Amino acid sequence: MVGLKNVQVTIVGLGLMGGSLAGALRERGACREVWGVARRGETIEEAMRRGFIDVGTCNLAEGVEQADLIVLATPVRTILELVPQVGALAPAGCLLMDLGSTKARIVGAMEALPPHLQAVGGHPMCGKEVSGLEAAEADLYQGATFVLTPLQRTSSEALTLARELVEAVGARPLLMDAERHDRLVAAVSHLPYLLSVGLVATTEEVAAEDELVWELAASGFRDTSRLAASDVTMMLDILLTNRAAVGETLSRFADQLNAIAHLLEADDEQTLKFKLQTSNLKVQRLKFK
Amino acid sequence: MVGLKNVQVTIVGLGLMGGSLAGALRERGACREVWGVARRGETIEEAMRRGFIDVGTCNLAEGVEQADLIVLATPVRTILELVPQVGALAPAGCLLMDLGSTKARIVGAMEALPPHLQAVGGHPMCGKEVSGLEAAEADLYQGATFVLTPLQRTSSEALTLARELVEAVGARPLLMDAERHDRLVAAVSHLPYLLSVGLVATTEEVAAEDELVWELAASGFRDTSRLAASDVTMMLDILLTNRAAVGETLSRFADQLNAIAHLLEADDEQTLKFKLQTSNLKVQRLKFK
Repeated sequence: MVGLKNVQVTIVGLGLMGGSLAGALRERGACREVWGVARRGETIEEAMRRGFIDVGTCNLAEGVEQADLIVLATPVRTILELVPQVGALAPAGCLLMDLGSTKARIVGAMEALPPHLQAVGGHPMCGKEVSGLEAAEADLYQGATFVLTPLQRTSSEALTLARELVEAVGARPLLMDAERHDRLVAAVSHLPYLLSVGLVATTEEVAAEDELVWELAASGFRDTSRLAASDVTMMLDILLTNRAAVGETLSRFADQLNAIAHLLEADDEQTLKFKLQTSNLKVQRLKFK
Repeated sequence: MVGLKNVQVTIVGLGLMGGSLAGALRERGACREVWGVARRGETIEEAMRRGFIDVGTCNLAEGVEQADLIVLATPVRTILELVPQVGALAPAGCLLMDLGSTKARIVGAMEALPPHLQAVGGHPMCGKEVSGLEAAEADLYQGATFVLTPLQRTSSEALTLARELVEAVGARPLLMDAERHDRLVAAVSHLPYLLSVGLVATTEEVAAEDELVWELAASGFRDTSRLAASDVTMMLDILLTNRAAVGETLSRFADQLNAIAHLLEADDEQTLKFKLQTSNLKVQRLKFK
């Protein structure tokens, strides 16, 4: 396998993540050519217009048949459907990777690929609650952690190429196994989303009794409810392909909230204060990229 | 009572909220003079340096004895201590208001003020997770909803002056009774804070088993955990003076989260999708100032 500079990258799915990746690769001249595959012709036209791709097509076979590196950038369950399809179409020696938000199921599907293909799972820890190509930007990946989940069968050459792609778009590769990734993102990504959904649902319940509640929602509510605006298809795929870890995390969170409710009910000011201070100090210390 | 233009306003507490209110009044020339009372001399000096106040003092009696309008801008339980103290010091005809984040307890304390004083509760629905005069800015109130909770004894003249102050700093007055306010902010303000605290606590629990979890925390986690950085003294006062409503809201939220957990466990995709879509549409429709 050759270095990134000489390869043709095909990105399947030109939404927020795929479109931004295409834009970043092309803007930085990181690879020989960027090809894009999308379901709708208008998406291809828009991606061409924004200079994100060299070649675009709505035909998957056409899009992948000359690729050296294929990146699947669709919701998780679409990736699960695409892996065997692409496996039947991709040329020998090609590296297949993806940007899916859960990894165990995808890596499982990749294990069944024909032996003449290479594969590695990927998940960039960046995004926005808005989706689609309109929201794409070439510097979305800049400074983000980009998880790579290699398979048993992943060659060191293939992993090197994947790392090269990650670094080319300004992200920092972080290797871990797929199950570990899924357990950890259940806490820092899927839980925050469900808290936002639960917050909005609870407030709707209150609003059914007193509409004025929305008038009192300010910046704190806005930030905490923002994730509920995430793309539903994407989030549903994530939750349903990470059910066990999400369930466990929800249960842990419920215990935490229950503990707070009890401290409040018992008027246990000292313990409650300690709990609030602990979270306060932790958040103050966190540095986000 | 005269219009705002002719009154001397004394603000007790020059933190984020009090400092910003002082700055807004003075920058807009909204009243005759702005006086500030703070515990520490350095705070007074800083408020003078930033042009937020005309006169400053660390002596409460000195600060309020010539005031026409006194605004208590400290954490809730400090306000509860200050109300009777200020009641004994303020000149006849003076209007006492406050910026406390819960209202029933404060309004209760105001009911006991001497009859020669006027009083009204207030709560501006704006702020930041950072506190202190350093974070204060004269346009903090711009566009915000500012709840006013009149007492039985509040005269219409006093209420007019309070409304004038609210509008002078660019906020929109919204009248309601104190209990109603407290029930509603439990949902849109106190609940989001506790969700942030619970999210950070849950993630710390996961981190105790796997430190790498923090590497995966991205913008979604950042926004949802931001409120956990709020001032602990302020939040503790809020929670402890609104225990019943917060407890009820926590229980409602727990039911919502529990329902989501069950849908996920039962693999009930259709109902889960509907729930996610409902919150998604609601958040998309919300317009924040």
